[in-house]
Amino acid sequence: MRYGARNAINATVKSVKKGDVMSLIKFEVSTPAEMASVITTESVGHLKLKKGDQVQLVVKAIHVLPVKE
Amino acid sequence: MRYGARNAINATVKSVKKGDVMSLIKFEVSTPAEMASVITTESVGHLKLKKGDQVQLVVKAIHVLPVKE
Amino acid sequence: MRYGARNAINATVKSVKKGDVMSLIKFEVSTPAEMASVITTESVGHLKLKKGDQVQLVVKAIHVLPVKE
Amino acid sequence: MRYGARNAINATVKSVKKGDVMSLIKFEVSTPAEMASVITTESVGHLKLKKGDQVQLVVKAIHVLPVKE
Amino acid sequence: MRYGARNAINATVKSVKKGDVMSLIKFEVSTPAEMASVITTESVGHLKLKKGDQVQLVVKAIHVLPVKE
Amino acid sequence: MRYGARNAINATVKSVKKGDVMSLIKFEVSTPAEMASVITTESVGHLKLKKGDQVQLVVKAIHVLPVKE
Repeated sequence: MRYGARNAINATVKSVKKGDVMSLIKFEVSTPAEMASVITTESVGHLKLKKGDQVQLVVKAIHVLPVKE
Repeated sequence: MRYGARNAINATVKSVKKGDVMSLIKFEVSTPAEMASVITTESVGHLKLKKGDQVQLVVKAIHVLPVKE
Repeated sequence: MRYGARNAINATVKSVKKGDVMSLIKFEVSTPAEMASVITTESVGHLKLKKGDQVQLVVKAIHVLPVKE
Repeated sequence: MRYGARNAINATVKSVKKGDVMSLIKFEVSTPAEMASVITTESVGHLKLKKGDQVQLVVKAIHVLPVKE
Repeated sequence: MRYGARNAINATVKSVKKGDVMSLIKFEVSTPAEMASVITTESVGHLKLKKGDQVQLVVKAIHVLPVKE
Repeated sequence: MRYGARNAINATVKSVKKGDVMSLIKFEVSTPAEMASVITTESVGHLKLKKGDQVQLVVKAIHVLPVKE
């Protein structure tokens, strides 16, 4: 199975909080991973991003898609 | 600085590939992290998600926002 | 009215489940449609995508915007 | 394989346009499908959505994730 | 025409930069607007959000959908 | 602090509606702002977008990320 997405992170479910329509799931990520981001080339210039820079990767929970075999 | 997002992962830039409008950035994530996902409660039932389950967290690169101090 | 989006699918509402803040709506799509996806060129290579391939198009419900005249 | 997403549509690749960083893929969807949307309950009221309503489902191509076995 | 989205901002096109697959468009927003955000209730607690707080609303350009009559 | 996003709008919280898992927050935007959108170059052609055009910028509330110092 192959996804058209650059990020696929192995994780273990820690908790599930069920709401009326939406639910929040927490995961433990145990192994280091490579991640990828696509932003405008303008933003790369604005951030002055270059190899070795320390950043935080912010992702809204709504954009994380769990897949289970 | 606080974000209205449940995922904020420390990472190091490994490479920057600049395109005409969009750019692709790769990161190394060195430390384990907790992650969170919001999906419909229907999908939780469909996936039968429960504590201890192994999953893959798939995230399109376009949804990853780098933040730099 | 024209949208800056490549997918606009005619559909009929089948059910509405109202939650406290978010609601889930189900639709029947009766006519075949063309759809489009944008992914990284790296992912195209990883998926080895070419004309005639069978795929599944996965879309989180949160990314589907209903528009009504 | 199960996804934490309410939409999974069978489709056939019609064309692939590769760009420097991002690529655009077109698909033919041959079979009718059920689709789902999550919006705010406020928006449901604003749209006055009810069973039987005709709508257009607008989805940016960037939010469509192709998955291939 | 009604959209299942809580943000619809009147704007004027200032510039269009066309790329091979994706394009970047800049807009002038001349009138003040109300905006809305949906985040997890956990994040509301983490941000300690309350009436009167000053914030920045960060939105990736990819999530902005231009609509033209 | 710099974000890999083209839109960062100053705003004031007007109301917070807390739900079981997700919450809806309304903001007042008092100052005019520049905004940016990324869409496919195909969509630019379809919309015939050019300098001076009046448009509506539609953004789902789920894609708006509040950041607080």
